[in-house]
Amino acid sequence: MLDGLVISIDAMGGDDAPNIVIKGIEHFLTHEGQGRRARFQLHGDAEALAPLLEAAPRTRERSEVFHTEKTISMDDKPSQALRKGKGSSMWNAIAAVKGGQAGIAVSAGNTGALMAMSKLQLRAKRGVQRPAIAASWPNLSGDMTVVLDVGANVECDAAQLTEFAVLGEAYFRAIYGKQDPVVGLLNVGTEEGKGNTTIKAAHERLAQSQLGLNYIGFVEGNNISSGNVDVVITDGFTGNIALKTAEGTAKLISTFFSEALNDNWWSKFTTALNLMALRKLKKKMDPRRANGGVFLGLNGIVVKSHGGTDAIGYANALNIAMGLAESDFQDAIDERLDALHDEDDNIGFIA
Amino acid sequence: MLDGLVISIDAMGGDDAPNIVIKGIEHFLTHEGQGRRARFQLHGDAEALAPLLEAAPRTRERSEVFHTEKTISMDDKPSQALRKGKGSSMWNAIAAVKGGQAGIAVSAGNTGALMAMSKLQLRAKRGVQRPAIAASWPNLSGDMTVVLDVGANVECDAAQLTEFAVLGEAYFRAIYGKQDPVVGLLNVGTEEGKGNTTIKAAHERLAQSQLGLNYIGFVEGNNISSGNVDVVITDGFTGNIALKTAEGTAKLISTFFSEALNDNWWSKFTTALNLMALRKLKKKMDPRRANGGVFLGLNGIVVKSHGGTDAIGYANALNIAMGLAESDFQDAIDERLDALHDEDDNIGFIA
Repeated sequence: MLDGLVISIDAMGGDDAPNIVIKGIEHFLTHEGQGRRARFQLHGDAEALAPLLEAAPRTRERSEVFHTEKTISMDDKPSQALRKGKGSSMWNAIAAVKGGQAGIAVSAGNTGALMAMSKLQLRAKRGVQRPAIAASWPNLSGDMTVVLDVGANVECDAAQLTEFAVLGEAYFRAIYGKQDPVVGLLNVGTEEGKGNTTIKAAHERLAQSQLGLNYIGFVEGNNISSGNVDVVITDGFTGNIALKTAEGTAKLISTFFSEALNDNWWSKFTTALNLMALRKLKKKMDPRRANGGVFLGLNGIVVKSHGGTDAIGYANALNIAMGLAESDFQDAIDERLDALHDEDDNIGFIA
Repeated sequence: MLDGLVISIDAMGGDDAPNIVIKGIEHFLTHEGQGRRARFQLHGDAEALAPLLEAAPRTRERSEVFHTEKTISMDDKPSQALRKGKGSSMWNAIAAVKGGQAGIAVSAGNTGALMAMSKLQLRAKRGVQRPAIAASWPNLSGDMTVVLDVGANVECDAAQLTEFAVLGEAYFRAIYGKQDPVVGLLNVGTEEGKGNTTIKAAHERLAQSQLGLNYIGFVEGNNISSGNVDVVITDGFTGNIALKTAEGTAKLISTFFSEALNDNWWSKFTTALNLMALRKLKKKMDPRRANGGVFLGLNGIVVKSHGGTDAIGYANALNIAMGLAESDFQDAIDERLDALHDEDDNIGFIA
């Protein structure tokens, strides 16, 4: 029996599952995860997995297959998934975390279903109203900015936003190793008095807190990319739209540049002369670097890979998962949450 | 006395006013506005304007100065501006539209103050609950996408969102000449049932409308840049954050490309060989092209230029203003709004 951290995998979740999933694990074990002691529980169709494992020797060596024929489709609504999903590859991957057989679960499947099943099985941490999804976005400093919530909760009150600050800050420390990350609250302006009632209440609550968060107040949409904020707090409606707007704009500007660099034979020629620098750029802008949304606030860690990613992107999600599982961020969250709720009681805060 | 459309100008509004304002008018009259019969009312400090007009012969010839020493600062809150702002350059520019001496007002001053004064003086159109600010954003088709509201109303109900669709559609037709622009409602997913209560109610209302809007349902953040939607409807909180996120991301990706193209002496050299194509790109991505937010839903037209723009950006705002003033978009709005509210009554719609 091999030792090391156990990662339970929804092998059937994702646009090109289980193919990309197994290739992703193999890539991870060959590169990022080389020498790190990870083992895998593969939940899915044993017959479909067998030939893939044949071609992935490192994965085969460190994996155990847990057969199930049931899968959740990308179109299933969360309520449908809960109704018919028990025993599916997604359900079983989460159940392994709940049962303690695995330290963390990873799925590239349907986000809504994954969140619903995670909440049902793992339950929200004591005191957390609603878990959130945190995503990473590259910034001008060359680092990453964490944004949450990016879609789990389309309506949030001030108490939830305050909790997101605690969750996101602990997550950032665990993943990026910065000890005092800058936390900001997303708003339509930085001046006091801007924004809606909920935002203003959350701001007041965070500003008067003695928790020791490095909270700098309101930030604006451009701060997601500017690099002067590490953790951007927002509700799931705004966060989802901001992140997709950022993705769309990144594509727009990249396309404009590509077109210019290939405008005519001369620009194609000069661009070809500059291939080295452009290859470096491509690596820097690789969206797979940002793959891996993390569910925060649950009694157990679940990482969501983008459904349409490739093996390299999936490996990145595994890398995030492993970094989290090896960190003490769940304890850090518990400690801060307790302090937050003690404060709430003392000041009589009700959102 | 010269004939033609009269544009009333808040000559003192903007980071580098009145300098940029006069230079912007001169640029407009030399380029975009050449041969078009526009005249200008310049509201501001006559002493400060005199030497600037000396250096701007085309502007001088077509302008009349209306002296006032009072100005609104960029930091004034809307309530302060209303209290002390009567008789200011901004106030008087709007008053000229109200009084019928000017067809349209343009200001690069404080947005909140400008909206507050515009609402107080011009009043919302009959039936419009709250005016909105519409902004334009370049897209992958090489055209522009209009987004509204981008900041006037941080909280909106379903009836307001429905009105924004009517306002934005008429605006798009007037400015970009497309007869059947595609209208979408910004949400966290395109499937029915996604989003918060307000969004769902607005969607239902728009979907069952017989107004003849080319409404395609929910769109996502990336559709602001994708070019498959012309008019994106959202509340002022989300719209402001989406637009600023887009601006921040555009800067991020452009910086990444610039760095790559100037990474070392060789990439600098090859980039220099490709200057022509990159100049064309710069023009295409020029943010000044998108300058000019328009206040929709008022009895009178007010255009807001970005406070920090230069003469070329200001000229673009004037170009938008002139296009609007020459169009019949206010009548088109009135017609559609009446039909919308008749429908509301028939189906008993209350947001």
